[in-house]
Amino acid sequence: MASKVRLYVDHPLGEGQTVPLGRDQANYLFAVMRLPVGTVLSLINGRDGEWDAEVVEANKRAGVLRCLAQTRPLQLPPDVWLLFAPIKKERTAFIVEKATELGAAKIIPVQTDFTQSANRARQDKLQAHAVEATEQCGGTFVPEVEPLRTLANMLADWPSDRHLLFCDETLLEDPHEMADLPDGPWAIVIGPEGGFSNTEREALRNHRQSHPISLGPRILRADTAAVAALTLWQREKGDWA
Amino acid sequence: MASKVRLYVDHPLGEGQTVPLGRDQANYLFAVMRLPVGTVLSLINGRDGEWDAEVVEANKRAGVLRCLAQTRPLQLPPDVWLLFAPIKKERTAFIVEKATELGAAKIIPVQTDFTQSANRARQDKLQAHAVEATEQCGGTFVPEVEPLRTLANMLADWPSDRHLLFCDETLLEDPHEMADLPDGPWAIVIGPEGGFSNTEREALRNHRQSHPISLGPRILRADTAAVAALTLWQREKGDWA
Repeated sequence: MASKVRLYVDHPLGEGQTVPLGRDQANYLFAVMRLPVGTVLSLINGRDGEWDAEVVEANKRAGVLRCLAQTRPLQLPPDVWLLFAPIKKERTAFIVEKATELGAAKIIPVQTDFTQSANRARQDKLQAHAVEATEQCGGTFVPEVEPLRTLANMLADWPSDRHLLFCDETLLEDPHEMADLPDGPWAIVIGPEGGFSNTEREALRNHRQSHPISLGPRILRADTAAVAALTLWQREKGDWA
Repeated sequence: MASKVRLYVDHPLGEGQTVPLGRDQANYLFAVMRLPVGTVLSLINGRDGEWDAEVVEANKRAGVLRCLAQTRPLQLPPDVWLLFAPIKKERTAFIVEKATELGAAKIIPVQTDFTQSANRARQDKLQAHAVEATEQCGGTFVPEVEPLRTLANMLADWPSDRHLLFCDETLLEDPHEMADLPDGPWAIVIGPEGGFSNTEREALRNHRQSHPISLGPRILRADTAAVAALTLWQREKGDWA
């Protein structure tokens, strides 16, 4: 019993809507997976929810699907951003995958004082990881991966209504209960391997909208910290409640 | 400014104790990293805490270290086991790494009805991942990775004092607050990709010591679920409190 193929397309979805496929997707569906005309699969585009669609034309270089019916409405994640310092390629991809699964609304790579410049991941590659993770995890929303910015620039231009959950690796105990944190838009900030510089830590601690939390007594890798912080936030302030 | 090398050895550590190195470690330290005699590094063995030790003999095939002073005592994690169904090789290694970082006391791979048999990871390889993660995360305790057992066998022979945190992927809302869970030894159970079979789910739900929890409205991969569940448990019942 094969599970239904779930595919992201950058095309409007709606009843009776036809959806042309590009060469890569056509090759995957009709040459690799050998799906015949009439096969029903799931489509998402990040905006119109999830749709059943049937294959109406199938060849290795192109193909056409037609939407049948919506199977799930668009489900937006809570308004939480993840800011993280890019680490090694594989682990950066992992952070994007996990942030997508865990329901981040936006993913923002930030350059910190201790970010290795070799770790500048390509935005289009990271966005593709977010799309793939959405296909896999049954989601209908794809978080946007923004271009790399410096942490200093981000903080200088910080939106006045957005709270900052600052995962401070030097804190062994938590200064407050997660449940006591204010409502509203949030962003979670995870440091690079090697932590934040003293200047950055002071800036984050002293930021007007910043709420520092501890992630326990052990040293966590940046990718672990991202999953842990998103989990705690979703459970207390997000849509796991 | 290089950070100090941190090395696991299977040898007693204590003041003045000499520690012979095997060929692989000697090669790494003296041929690859080119550490000279007199270099001070950190040793752990999972039992005696963390020790500063200096290099007293260095050649590519062997070497000797001598312990100087203890830098950290042994810090045991809380008594929580992680039971998980092996998934693809890379992600299984990842689960072992994350469970070590997040302070699991024991890691137990379990065969479930939907576990792919191709995913039987070698115990010695998984144990090596736990050692490496301990070296990296600054820990002094290495969780034991047990041999693969079937979930049915484990449940039939379940220790009468150990609670079971059952991460039920079919639950969208949580039946209880984490804070209300009882004290005592715990185990966290994560399902395979594809979830538990109906028989397993019933057995887990009806188990006398079982406490089901939800991990939110999105489908999480098994590796994400492991990190999320350990985080929630550590924060409420473990040593993050």
